[in-house]
Amino acid sequence: MKKFAVVLAGNGVFDGAEIHEATLSLLAIKKHGADYEIFAPDIPQHHVINHLTGKEMNETRNVLVEAARIARGKIRDLKQLNVREFDALLFPGGFGVAKNLCTWAFDGPACKVNPDVEKVIREMTSMKKPIGALCISPVLLAKVLGNVEITIGNDPATAAGVEKAGATHVNTGHGEVVRDPHRPVFTTPCYMLDASIVDIANGAENIVKAILAELK
Amino acid sequence: MKKFAVVLAGNGVFDGAEIHEATLSLLAIKKHGADYEIFAPDIPQHHVINHLTGKEMNETRNVLVEAARIARGKIRDLKQLNVREFDALLFPGGFGVAKNLCTWAFDGPACKVNPDVEKVIREMTSMKKPIGALCISPVLLAKVLGNVEITIGNDPATAAGVEKAGATHVNTGHGEVVRDPHRPVFTTPCYMLDASIVDIANGAENIVKAILAELK
Repeated sequence: MKKFAVVLAGNGVFDGAEIHEATLSLLAIKKHGADYEIFAPDIPQHHVINHLTGKEMNETRNVLVEAARIARGKIRDLKQLNVREFDALLFPGGFGVAKNLCTWAFDGPACKVNPDVEKVIREMTSMKKPIGALCISPVLLAKVLGNVEITIGNDPATAAGVEKAGATHVNTGHGEVVRDPHRPVFTTPCYMLDASIVDIANGAENIVKAILAELK
Repeated sequence: MKKFAVVLAGNGVFDGAEIHEATLSLLAIKKHGADYEIFAPDIPQHHVINHLTGKEMNETRNVLVEAARIARGKIRDLKQLNVREFDALLFPGGFGVAKNLCTWAFDGPACKVNPDVEKVIREMTSMKKPIGALCISPVLLAKVLGNVEITIGNDPATAAGVEKAGATHVNTGHGEVVRDPHRPVFTTPCYMLDASIVDIANGAENIVKAILAELK
């Protein structure tokens, strides 16, 4: 059975992992006969956003502890991710990717990437194992891998940013998946477009199916 | 287009709404051509559980503010739910239902139900509009409606509790939906069984389809 390592950036679209993208990625993996383990970095969130008002809250939360809510407690510190145990790596989206896993939300293409995130991307790439990224997560791949073909949907500013980071951007619509021509790197836009939850289900399913086809 | 009011009990299986059940309910509604609005009570959570360790955390969170994470900010106070605007009412599960929407987790069949939760259940029932409940949420219907046929899966202690509250319990397996013989009340066990996320998707889809068939 093929096994995915799924990396979450917290729990909630504005400061963590986008919940629908995370949940529907897990569903797609199991639905297509594969399995998953969930990981997140054991670090403080950049900040905590009240998702009702959009305003910052005066508290601190931990990315791993909050991501454990999506994982129903079955989650491990990203430092424990041994890439040899997995066939593929998957990053659902959410602002937490651009705030907790890297600093793209603040620094754009000059961002820093969390060292453990960078490490697993580099290790999977060196082993030629597939990596999938939804929504804003492809910026991680642009920043770490540089010369890679990806999509973040069709937002001109973000597309210009990923090109500045050395990547090639391809505009996409709902549910479309881009595969880099040279490496098994897969991306799909999800909520980077004005999408419904059905579009997210389709995007998650299409990227998981594309990765499983690559692994055949 | 048929419209569901979905009521959430927070955000996280151990102290709020079960995230997979909530997300997959929203997906099922949209996938089958209906629409939804999301509501939650504007009240403090009973407590906050660290989902990594299972231990209580020394902080306070608000049910509506946390549920807004699942709703991506598009959520309203349950007090604003006007049942005339909706065709059906749906309660995903999670311990938050038994801790925040009522006190079943502590008091069993002697529990108190949040007055706004009780109000919308009574109003929907008096208008003969369908109500669906997943996982542990059927205890709300047992407590408020009394004489109603429901399922919470096959856990003997919980089944005995709902019978003590005046309801009739039917044992069920993955994805099965029970409809009360007299009223359009629908229940399905989801994570009250040892289930995979695919079972949850099936349960959510089956209950939403049953409700939509009732509304035809």
